[in-house]
Amino acid sequence: MQAVDERLHSRVIQFYARQMQALDNGRFEEYAGTFTEDGVFQHTPGTEPARTRAGILAELLEFNKKYENDPVQRRHYFSQVLLEPQADGTIRSTVYALIVRTRPGSRPEMWPSCVVNDVIVADGTTVLLKSRHVDYDDLRPGV
Amino acid sequence: MQAVDERLHSRVIQFYARQMQALDNGRFEEYAGTFTEDGVFQHTPGTEPARTRAGILAELLEFNKKYENDPVQRRHYFSQVLLEPQADGTIRSTVYALIVRTRPGSRPEMWPSCVVNDVIVADGTTVLLKSRHVDYDDLRPGV
Amino acid sequence: MQAVDERLHSRVIQFYARQMQALDNGRFEEYAGTFTEDGVFQHTPGTEPARTRAGILAELLEFNKKYENDPVQRRHYFSQVLLEPQADGTIRSTVYALIVRTRPGSRPEMWPSCVVNDVIVADGTTVLLKSRHVDYDDLRPGV
Repeated sequence: MQAVDERLHSRVIQFYARQMQALDNGRFEEYAGTFTEDGVFQHTPGTEPARTRAGILAELLEFNKKYENDPVQRRHYFSQVLLEPQADGTIRSTVYALIVRTRPGSRPEMWPSCVVNDVIVADGTTVLLKSRHVDYDDLRPGV
Repeated sequence: MQAVDERLHSRVIQFYARQMQALDNGRFEEYAGTFTEDGVFQHTPGTEPARTRAGILAELLEFNKKYENDPVQRRHYFSQVLLEPQADGTIRSTVYALIVRTRPGSRPEMWPSCVVNDVIVADGTTVLLKSRHVDYDDLRPGV
Repeated sequence: MQAVDERLHSRVIQFYARQMQALDNGRFEEYAGTFTEDGVFQHTPGTEPARTRAGILAELLEFNKKYENDPVQRRHYFSQVLLEPQADGTIRSTVYALIVRTRPGSRPEMWPSCVVNDVIVADGTTVLLKSRHVDYDDLRPGV
């Protein structure tokens, strides 16, 4: 079985916790900073991905305008983080993500269920995303 | 990136699994024992927190009276465990928690989505909670 | 507190990620191969469990016939992995599993919530399941 050592595994899991809590709490600059300088982020299939930290930040600010008057709290629940070292030294990471949305006084809505496809670069001190592409289960073709 | 080492990270994750399975299975004394002797547990915002293991146990027994004739099985799904070492030697832990409730013959209901705010004390052999405060996404103020 | 060391913990968590992504993506032979040769898999309470890798594969192929014309994407979200070393050298693993089902163009349905009871055998290089029994929260008796 291919796997990564426990130290790298732990660092990636902790990286995700910090990164996604930053995103869900609206700290978009911090989220953009979890990518490499030339990082690529595609959160909506069929659209052009955002490129570079500045580009990712701009995209997030634009995307979140629609929530300006909507007091929704989003939470990204991750599970089943699969890490696969690649020949070029990067790590491919494939993760399940369930988005939970709560509005004041209401029960949460849960959608969509996604698969997050990351390419990670890690050295002795840092973990960063080189790219992230998100696949949505509800946008998959039928049989 | 601030993080804890893989050994402590693993111990905390395993601590949570054991602690929350104890709570969900009604082993309240075991749950109370996961706090320090002077531990503080606030599970409902706006109420006085329970203090000391005996106080936490009493609170849990009182709180669960309302489920005495309700065969609901609750499960706490945790995700995104963020661990931040503090200057005083404790560890701040911020965790997403989705509560899943199932009654016999029915599909699960999922609510609320919470953020669990723990202060952890860990030494070479033990992990304990000094305090736990739970924030509910549906009780957050709107924009 | 009983726990396993961080290396084994990490390997089991990664094993689950790989195993369950294989199952959810329909790679049943890979899933069957995560059991020991004489492995036992009971996914439906009250039925005879499947035995041996060949038996588990046959069962999965039979079980999934009902989805042949149903473009549902299932995802198994795991949480709270509790690992308990046993006297015979195996590891008992008790895990929460929420199954998320998405059909094209629809919001996900989430059911059931299960408890997965595994017996794991691990040596220096491999992690395998000796047995897996799944309990469903909605099939539990009432009070």
